[in-house]
Amino acid sequence: MLRLDQATPAQLRELEVSLNEQYQSFQQQGLNLDLTRGKPNSEQLDLSDQLDGILKGNYSDRNGTDLRNYGGLDGIPEAKELFSQMAGVRPEEVMIGGNGSLELMHFSVETGLQNGFNGEDSAWNKEEQTIKFLAPVPGYDRHFTVCTHLGIELIPVATDENGPDMDQVEQLLKADSSIKGIWCVPRFSNPTGIVYSDEVVDRMAQLGKIAGPNFRIFWDNAYAVHTLEDSAPELANIMDACRQYGTEDSVIIFGSSSKITYAGAGVAFIASSPSNIAALVKNLIPVSIGPDKLNQLRHVYFLKDLDTIKQHMKKHAAILKPRFEIVYKTLREGLSDTGMGTWNEPRGGYFVAFDSLPGLAREIVKLAAEAGVKLTPAGATFPYGNDPQDTNIRLAPTFPSLVDIEKAMEIFVTCVQLASVRQKLAA
Amino acid sequence: MLRLDQATPAQLRELEVSLNEQYQSFQQQGLNLDLTRGKPNSEQLDLSDQLDGILKGNYSDRNGTDLRNYGGLDGIPEAKELFSQMAGVRPEEVMIGGNGSLELMHFSVETGLQNGFNGEDSAWNKEEQTIKFLAPVPGYDRHFTVCTHLGIELIPVATDENGPDMDQVEQLLKADSSIKGIWCVPRFSNPTGIVYSDEVVDRMAQLGKIAGPNFRIFWDNAYAVHTLEDSAPELANIMDACRQYGTEDSVIIFGSSSKITYAGAGVAFIASSPSNIAALVKNLIPVSIGPDKLNQLRHVYFLKDLDTIKQHMKKHAAILKPRFEIVYKTLREGLSDTGMGTWNEPRGGYFVAFDSLPGLAREIVKLAAEAGVKLTPAGATFPYGNDPQDTNIRLAPTFPSLVDIEKAMEIFVTCVQLASVRQKLAA
Repeated sequence: MLRLDQATPAQLRELEVSLNEQYQSFQQQGLNLDLTRGKPNSEQLDLSDQLDGILKGNYSDRNGTDLRNYGGLDGIPEAKELFSQMAGVRPEEVMIGGNGSLELMHFSVETGLQNGFNGEDSAWNKEEQTIKFLAPVPGYDRHFTVCTHLGIELIPVATDENGPDMDQVEQLLKADSSIKGIWCVPRFSNPTGIVYSDEVVDRMAQLGKIAGPNFRIFWDNAYAVHTLEDSAPELANIMDACRQYGTEDSVIIFGSSSKITYAGAGVAFIASSPSNIAALVKNLIPVSIGPDKLNQLRHVYFLKDLDTIKQHMKKHAAILKPRFEIVYKTLREGLSDTGMGTWNEPRGGYFVAFDSLPGLAREIVKLAAEAGVKLTPAGATFPYGNDPQDTNIRLAPTFPSLVDIEKAMEIFVTCVQLASVRQKLAA
Repeated sequence: MLRLDQATPAQLRELEVSLNEQYQSFQQQGLNLDLTRGKPNSEQLDLSDQLDGILKGNYSDRNGTDLRNYGGLDGIPEAKELFSQMAGVRPEEVMIGGNGSLELMHFSVETGLQNGFNGEDSAWNKEEQTIKFLAPVPGYDRHFTVCTHLGIELIPVATDENGPDMDQVEQLLKADSSIKGIWCVPRFSNPTGIVYSDEVVDRMAQLGKIAGPNFRIFWDNAYAVHTLEDSAPELANIMDACRQYGTEDSVIIFGSSSKITYAGAGVAFIASSPSNIAALVKNLIPVSIGPDKLNQLRHVYFLKDLDTIKQHMKKHAAILKPRFEIVYKTLREGLSDTGMGTWNEPRGGYFVAFDSLPGLAREIVKLAAEAGVKLTPAGATFPYGNDPQDTNIRLAPTFPSLVDIEKAMEIFVTCVQLASVRQKLAA
């Protein structure tokens, strides 16, 4: 492939003709491919099929509590212990929820907004100002939706390969007391796949000192153990860092087994300071009779401890790695050194983020759709769907088959090339 | 036992002495009995122990959807069909939730308050007035807590053996447009055990015409199939009545399998008009990745259809009926024709409500506690804990053993007698 900035107009015109032909041949195939779905494939789900039936008549936790009955708002002791290992915190810093961490995130933001983490007077909506959250971009659209659903405004913050731009984060927090939260996916970030550097984690742990007692970091560590290989970059332990600075109350960690066992029938949890956990449990009393404790026990029997979880994740990696490698190979072969876009090659998580030339993301998504490849809508990774440069496209290669990913990526690359060449010709 | 109004002062004094002796002998036994817990006993929970392992490798619904994965906010088709039979509605009028109906109730009230059932402008909190709900009393404290948690004021409404006083309900609704809801437990009401009469159900179905399009009946049919015997009174179908009056939007029915299968790991559902269901599902999108669909499938395999549910409930009845009969027997033997209190003898549900002489409920609960019998706090069955007559005491006989219930009820009756005699003597 040509380098865009070194191509002559004649070369570009020639290339456009051949790309157009290729594109039209894809269109004629009437394909129906989908790279939008950040969910496990069925081979992955099969890995956890021991869950149903694993109880074998055991229905009590180690305290003798009958888990079939009501109660236990904060989860069973064994599950707290298990997931505390995954979160890198103490068991008493964990509460276990139902089958989805999104619900726990929504509930936590709502608690901060309406009930307060430090008593009623600390509720954010007691303040006479619009509440705001920082949204490192590109980010996860469902985080943004939690905020817009609750009337919270989002301020985008730049990110690079180390995580959010911490200078910008600190400046914004110093300047504006209405900012009460920041969304983070610190390991294998959705969608860029980056892992926050040790320095970023350390500066995050100090934000509580800058932003005051009512600020919270919403640390969605959704891909905590979701590596493609052993050498994948590690994430520093934020709670350990917070303990150094006395800012344990400033961070709320979320996690789940959704992409470890079953996406729809896993176990989600919150890890935070005992004070935050107490505020959350208190606010749960009017809402819930307690989560499904039997499913917690199933997970304890199946996942056992962090080592067992890591062994289990290697099976996921064996299924997922070839899918990611196809994406990387196709991108490299079609776009390396062309000046038509950039991307990361994460060693874990569920996504690859591609950045096109400015102003082309929407066009590429549209071209792909018309050739039978569904992509996440351009802009979806930004608050209010507004990607100011119109560059970011999220690719989700976990769910389709290898053959489908290969085909879809071939078409995607052609669309990037075609859109880039056309833009250059029109310039 | 004496009739209180026919006893001479001398007889009363003599009786007080012997009751005192009896009471003190109970105190000396150092008992620790509990009639507060409206939850199934372990023998009942055992009835559903086929659930874990029932899937036997089947993870798809009848549309071929893999239920282990994300999605399906409104539940699987088979579960809608199953619970629509229980709710007496059409399958398309059902959405399936997680393991608790309380969460669905809280969510529904929140939807009315913050998002509206008829578009954003219909949200109750758009109105410049404090929102109110009617609370038939005595009622269920967790209903009241949902409202107080969301800043909704409660107006008590009288009930009798036919249900809420519908004259009062209609008058209140005509007079005050800030009343947006009413709580109902229409069959084997918590705590009185009464079943709403056909006339009450019919007038309920017409409230939508009086109160306008933003009013909702929160119809918590928690004990829909929870009978102690075949001859238990039936409840008229409210949705059928609503169809006659064109008020299908005015009622939201709640139910669950919590007291059919597992209290902590059952399946809860909402039944309402397609328009209400659509509003609820829309409001669920920012909050949830969908309920645990595998547990829905487990319940479909286990409970099958309404006939199978009814057969299953007979097994519960066999366990529960002797417990209720002890309560009734002890009350009759100790308090019939004494003028010391009244009670219903429900043929289903989880509770018996006892009404003492005015001003004695707190005293009786206190006396019982001091003799080792824990009762639900007096006042708990009224909004804000305020039972104006101080008469209502909720008895929950499902969880303790037969022996414990017998002992607890013997002590309870003694406490009622003692408090009543003392009150009479002091008058």
